[in-house]
Amino acid sequence: MQVTIRGRTAHCRSVTFDAAHNTVRLIEQRRLPHQFQIVATPDYRATAAAIANMTVRGAPAIAAAAAYGLAQGTRAFRGASLPGLARHARRVCDTLKRARPTAVDPVHAMDEVLARMSAGETVAEQQALALAAAEEFAHRSVADCTAIGRHGAALIRDGARVLTHCNAGWLACVDVGTATAPMYAAQQQGKRFHVYCDETRPRCQGATLTAWELAQQGISHEVIADNAAGHLMQRGEVDLVLVGSDRVLARTGEVANKIGTYTKAVLARRHRIPFYVAIPLSTIDFELASGREIPIEERAPAEVLGAWGVVDRGGPRRTARPGAPVYVRVANPSSGARNPAFDVTPPELIAGIITPVGIFKPRELMRRRGLLAARR
Amino acid sequence: MQVTIRGRTAHCRSVTFDAAHNTVRLIEQRRLPHQFQIVATPDYRATAAAIANMTVRGAPAIAAAAAYGLAQGTRAFRGASLPGLARHARRVCDTLKRARPTAVDPVHAMDEVLARMSAGETVAEQQALALAAAEEFAHRSVADCTAIGRHGAALIRDGARVLTHCNAGWLACVDVGTATAPMYAAQQQGKRFHVYCDETRPRCQGATLTAWELAQQGISHEVIADNAAGHLMQRGEVDLVLVGSDRVLARTGEVANKIGTYTKAVLARRHRIPFYVAIPLSTIDFELASGREIPIEERAPAEVLGAWGVVDRGGPRRTARPGAPVYVRVANPSSGARNPAFDVTPPELIAGIITPVGIFKPRELMRRRGLLAARR
Repeated sequence: MQVTIRGRTAHCRSVTFDAAHNTVRLIEQRRLPHQFQIVATPDYRATAAAIANMTVRGAPAIAAAAAYGLAQGTRAFRGASLPGLARHARRVCDTLKRARPTAVDPVHAMDEVLARMSAGETVAEQQALALAAAEEFAHRSVADCTAIGRHGAALIRDGARVLTHCNAGWLACVDVGTATAPMYAAQQQGKRFHVYCDETRPRCQGATLTAWELAQQGISHEVIADNAAGHLMQRGEVDLVLVGSDRVLARTGEVANKIGTYTKAVLARRHRIPFYVAIPLSTIDFELASGREIPIEERAPAEVLGAWGVVDRGGPRRTARPGAPVYVRVANPSSGARNPAFDVTPPELIAGIITPVGIFKPRELMRRRGLLAARR
Repeated sequence: MQVTIRGRTAHCRSVTFDAAHNTVRLIEQRRLPHQFQIVATPDYRATAAAIANMTVRGAPAIAAAAAYGLAQGTRAFRGASLPGLARHARRVCDTLKRARPTAVDPVHAMDEVLARMSAGETVAEQQALALAAAEEFAHRSVADCTAIGRHGAALIRDGARVLTHCNAGWLACVDVGTATAPMYAAQQQGKRFHVYCDETRPRCQGATLTAWELAQQGISHEVIADNAAGHLMQRGEVDLVLVGSDRVLARTGEVANKIGTYTKAVLARRHRIPFYVAIPLSTIDFELASGREIPIEERAPAEVLGAWGVVDRGGPRRTARPGAPVYVRVANPSSGARNPAFDVTPPELIAGIITPVGIFKPRELMRRRGLLAARR
């Protein structure tokens, strides 16, 4: 999407590859929204570190970073032996996998790169194929998000007020995003609408990343406390809820997503506001039999007990790097916290799942398995 | 309630009067939970300033502060003329009223002091009566909260997990609190239970004040993001919701309270978890015909766009006073925010209203008007 920094506008992806320098270029997402910076990782180990330390985050984005990282590592191989290259590529894969061990998308992406490489008959050919495969993976990821936008844009009528939760935007993907894709498509169609961004405590990805994205795209929006969504719905000020997902269970139609998603779905149902989930096909899990089986990560209490931000003008800014967030303790110092990071929304609260191949009812996914699994 | 600072435990009220020095003594609530400090206001103007700047907050607490402030001002009168004292008392009242112009509780409290004073036949008698009336107001306020606790404690069974929102604790009252009163009473009865404190963005009174209160009282508790309550309910980890209120409409049974309360009520209903509201009788409004008529204050966007906290060790603490919170901007700098401060919960979501004279169904209040209005 487009990014304007100090008056200069450029098109930007969250993850790209610089073939001349053999570097992966990433938006430094930990500095957003207070500072925009692109980092270039000089080798695959640095790419793995950037995945691990969350310079890049979001399943499609880290999958692309891993695919590029594997191409990068492969292209740095200096021998002429194909078995030597294969051994080296496996080491690179292992390093990139270990960067976010629970994520499945990078593994699938790298498997694709490895499969494509293997058709090459020389080291140079395999190296070229690895990069071509990574580029193709990234382009297809963008095309998928664009298709989500094409299907979803019809849900946003002119004048609509849309609520979104967390960041399922282009920063989390290579470009366009999932929950944001219908917004960007509707904007291109000339529709006018307003987006409420749940701030999404405790990590505030809505207030930081989604709000930044929408501001860059010139989409009318406001941040709200997570507590305010119910009140706005009650007053008739929300027409549509659009969120992303970390895992959609085809067997049950349940949707796992950032903590607080379930609450918005319950509120939306009470107020008969359509609640849609936008996902690439890789998010669909055809195996798990129940949302109860999804492990709910409990993250560090410090996230709930404080907040990351930039000290305001007049404050003690000079001791911190410009744009570098500081952590402040908000809560009572002697209190602890529970911090479940995800929740599970049942299918009866969900109007539809927006995918690159169309919009489906949550309970329809399993029946459509043939179509959906084939297109992944 | 009891407060332990550096190993010393003392009983403490949020508002008291020091007759020897003619000062109102207030817990400096803006410094909590990071610093405990009691301030003594030297004259009624300083008491009004402390109400205005939120050194003291919470309807019952500012009512007591205003009553004491009026006694303080009256006692500083140096003349011997009763009409002169009456004129002076009116000036004092006006100053204290202007400190929080929309609050009705201070007005009622000061009317009571003025009425009692007028029985005195000399300046000295009236001054003594003013202080006696203010003391009585404060004691009755505490007795009311204690009675709320007596009625409400039965709702907390041994082993219960209780969710509360915002701070309706003893800091907001003179002592004991409203939503917290059943907790403190249940604790005295030897029951064991656990409290989840919604952090209550944007001002985080749950994470700061309620968590501090419960920690001081040794009640097991954890802070949660407002987003997490639905997930905990879904997993069967909440047995009871207890909140306070800013205004309860007797005609409709609607409850106005801190933004986010409505959301918790909707979630509680979905999970068949009893949702109770604890209030003193002064919170009941017998006039308004609809919750739609309650003006919902929109507060400064900065509250949503950032957070107040104490910079962690290693951070730029030295440039701030110890314990003094700093404001950090969390959200995207070019984004705005909506910040409704209250919401309205309809009666069908409320299991009961806990008052000093018993627990009532929300729609029962109007029928009980005789009893309830007489006891105010």
